[in-house]
Amino acid sequence: MAGGLEQPSLAASPAPDFAHVIQTMKTADTPAEPLPDEIPLNIIANEVAQILEVYQDDENGQLVEECAAEDDKGKMILGRNIHDTCLSITEPEVDDEVTGEKDAFMAAVLSRYRKTLIEKTKFHLGYPYNLDFDYGALAQLQHFSINNLGDPFIESNYGVHSRQFEVGVLDWFARLWDLEKDEYWGYITNCGTEGNLHGILVGREVFPDGILYASKESHYSVFKAARMYRMEVIKVDTLTSGEIDCTDFKNRLVQHKDNPAIINVNIGTTVKGAVDDLDLIIRTLEDAGFSRDRFYIHCDGALFGLMIPFVKKAPKVTFKKPIGSVSVSGHKFVGCPMPCGVQITRKEHINALSRNVEYLASRDATIMGSRNGHAPIFLWYTLNRKGYRGFQKEVQRCLRNAHYLKDRLRSAGFSALLNELSSTVVFERPQEEEFVRKWQLACQGKIAHAVVMPSVTVEKLDDFVEELIKSRARCFPDGQILVPCVADEVGGENCSCLQHNQLFQLGIDRQS
Amino acid sequence: MAGGLEQPSLAASPAPDFAHVIQTMKTADTPAEPLPDEIPLNIIANEVAQILEVYQDDENGQLVEECAAEDDKGKMILGRNIHDTCLSITEPEVDDEVTGEKDAFMAAVLSRYRKTLIEKTKFHLGYPYNLDFDYGALAQLQHFSINNLGDPFIESNYGVHSRQFEVGVLDWFARLWDLEKDEYWGYITNCGTEGNLHGILVGREVFPDGILYASKESHYSVFKAARMYRMEVIKVDTLTSGEIDCTDFKNRLVQHKDNPAIINVNIGTTVKGAVDDLDLIIRTLEDAGFSRDRFYIHCDGALFGLMIPFVKKAPKVTFKKPIGSVSVSGHKFVGCPMPCGVQITRKEHINALSRNVEYLASRDATIMGSRNGHAPIFLWYTLNRKGYRGFQKEVQRCLRNAHYLKDRLRSAGFSALLNELSSTVVFERPQEEEFVRKWQLACQGKIAHAVVMPSVTVEKLDDFVEELIKSRARCFPDGQILVPCVADEVGGENCSCLQHNQLFQLGIDRQS
Repeated sequence: MAGGLEQPSLAASPAPDFAHVIQTMKTADTPAEPLPDEIPLNIIANEVAQILEVYQDDENGQLVEECAAEDDKGKMILGRNIHDTCLSITEPEVDDEVTGEKDAFMAAVLSRYRKTLIEKTKFHLGYPYNLDFDYGALAQLQHFSINNLGDPFIESNYGVHSRQFEVGVLDWFARLWDLEKDEYWGYITNCGTEGNLHGILVGREVFPDGILYASKESHYSVFKAARMYRMEVIKVDTLTSGEIDCTDFKNRLVQHKDNPAIINVNIGTTVKGAVDDLDLIIRTLEDAGFSRDRFYIHCDGALFGLMIPFVKKAPKVTFKKPIGSVSVSGHKFVGCPMPCGVQITRKEHINALSRNVEYLASRDATIMGSRNGHAPIFLWYTLNRKGYRGFQKEVQRCLRNAHYLKDRLRSAGFSALLNELSSTVVFERPQEEEFVRKWQLACQGKIAHAVVMPSVTVEKLDDFVEELIKSRARCFPDGQILVPCVADEVGGENCSCLQHNQLFQLGIDRQS
Repeated sequence: MAGGLEQPSLAASPAPDFAHVIQTMKTADTPAEPLPDEIPLNIIANEVAQILEVYQDDENGQLVEECAAEDDKGKMILGRNIHDTCLSITEPEVDDEVTGEKDAFMAAVLSRYRKTLIEKTKFHLGYPYNLDFDYGALAQLQHFSINNLGDPFIESNYGVHSRQFEVGVLDWFARLWDLEKDEYWGYITNCGTEGNLHGILVGREVFPDGILYASKESHYSVFKAARMYRMEVIKVDTLTSGEIDCTDFKNRLVQHKDNPAIINVNIGTTVKGAVDDLDLIIRTLEDAGFSRDRFYIHCDGALFGLMIPFVKKAPKVTFKKPIGSVSVSGHKFVGCPMPCGVQITRKEHINALSRNVEYLASRDATIMGSRNGHAPIFLWYTLNRKGYRGFQKEVQRCLRNAHYLKDRLRSAGFSALLNELSSTVVFERPQEEEFVRKWQLACQGKIAHAVVMPSVTVEKLDDFVEELIKSRARCFPDGQILVPCVADEVGGENCSCLQHNQLFQLGIDRQS
């Protein structure tokens, strides 16, 4: 059975009275077909890693340029084709209501799926999602089609909404970032991307001929926004830490003095968790001759937007500084069953963007029209229960645990980078793809990362490091461990390769 | 207490040991403050309707042009300012864990909120949402952070996903619209707007210098897309039914022969449920000299995209015709706790749009990045249970009930329009705003509509018509009912005003 991780036992244990279950699961049960020629998956086998069985149906393909540049092997591994394992929908039999077979089939699928989710949740380190939440008290609301369509502040004609929760959440975030109730506008988005799409759109509407500046380590949604919005975009260099390089930024600004600047500031980059220095960015703009009426700053705080207020030495994200918008994800640090985010901007900016929609009896100032009304209640619930103090404690624990992970990795001879304000630990990409899959690590080129969220305990980190050591040992059966150089990615001081770390003999030293 | 529909009794019945509850609810408990001057709500009092107490804090304001044109009174009523009733978040007390007061407070809020939702769900007619669903079997999944980030067909590194359900759902829709598995690409969106944003973006990437054509009764997201994407957009006239006027369409095409055409085709307009004639649109394009390699058609099937396949005489939406994409909402006819939608396009089109994202080990071809993994499971569950036959039965019942509603309205002396392929009944806007609010009717200018969904029974329609008759009677205490002329909106044959319907004396005739 190819790629059957999602329903490992269903095909293997068919019961006689589950005849149509078998039929439904056929695609998972039969050998996977080779991918059709025209599918542009760009899936390739990893030459360094062991080629796993689940990758047997991969094919070689051309790489997109951006990725080739970031990966010294010039190759990129994509996930499996889901069409091989998907759960087809079948027409109910005429007598299904009598026999109950369809319900039994679906109950079986869901029960197995739930087991898979438990397993997958257990071994998760790669994405900045807090998987530790208990929303049992909210289960009673699943029966309602809750929709906050339109503007959060103006009640629409549709009565089944949760705007009173949404605005409570927005007020909390506005206060966190120092905007008064009558000074801000915002809404709860579907994800970090929607926040960036909104922030950059507001920037463009304020400065229609503005040029978008973003460091090359910005989230891919920032560049997607530029393309969607037909904006000129300038990719600014980064330091090894992942922070924007303000020297390069200034050069670029000076070269494009005639256009206003719209800047995406990363409050925690996706891969390295690097926090761009907001104060330095503002100084750079001023030094390059951009007065405050000629720039718009959007802060992409997907993960750290909610952590950084609780880190004492961090540069403060606040609307007391000349910024235009901040976005943060709700499913990351807070934790939520579905992706969501919070977008806050100055009220003066939103008027340029919005129009009233009579059909809704509301205003259209959001990217999406219909909006998930459950997400605000999840956020409201958690914010109420934890409060500022609760988040502060969690942030401190995450940062502590991230340091613990980094120290353990370094003392086991791995290269590892941990930015000062971050709980994202970057390390050399494990060579076994199966290990990467098990721990769901996000990889880029020669590096991978683990994000230490509230759901990540010291015990989980211990398990992870021990398994990683074993995984590495399997790749070097002769015991001579070759540590790849990742100095370009994490800096020489964080690199454990022979050249950068001659102080100890890897493997041998550690064994003794 | 101003505007306290959402938590009617909380402020009214404070218990002594709920001291901090009171504090939290303060904004709802104190008299509503006047709206700040700079808030651009454009809220006005409706001169015709009785001015209700909840509107006491409204102010006059300028209208946006589009709305003024559609409303002969030149005015638009927006909903209430939610800031007056929002549920603030409070910092937990140090001893909350011991006393359990915070939990008790939240349980009380949620319990009252649930009651409100039940009431609001009961009296709902205005939006095309099927509110009748039972997803109890899926409650067990609420504890997981399910995220299908990236492309549905390529498994990402994040293991807690539901792609196997999503692709099953997509296959079902592709088959419904006659595309083979290896010919289509698609994904489950957050709402109808995301489908339109995606379809129009694909069109623009296929034809970068294409002009967007959309009838003026298209959903507002279509015009938002044009603005976001910096595309030239041409608003085409409509017939009284709400369908696109192909004579005007042809004239516009001929005037802009040099640019390719990107057309938004409405499979059910938002207000009148009018279905644009796809075959006539294609013929018009050909007549105007646009060969198939010079146009791209996106079908916005938000509601009717899923109903029309089951209506025998309807023009078929199929990829056997030269269309590029179709979108449909999942929370409308199917019914789902949160908004979602399905977007299907030809695989050949998506390659232009997408790029691989190594961080995800997947491909970026969607508008959003992180994507709700629960919605696909809801859809999968319902499609499996109901199947084609189940939907067919429901569609037939909805159309039958819509005819019943239209007939009852007409025989009670109201103007009413029901398009042949639609379950949206358009009628004159009720004069009592309280009635509009109770039944959550979507209004535009002089008309309102009710959408007959599977959750709408004949009993509910009877209740509605009887209350509407009583509401009208209250507006004409002398018994002389004046029916407004809405011939421009619904056509003379559907208008019950004196001029258009001299055959019977309103009110008096009906009473006898």
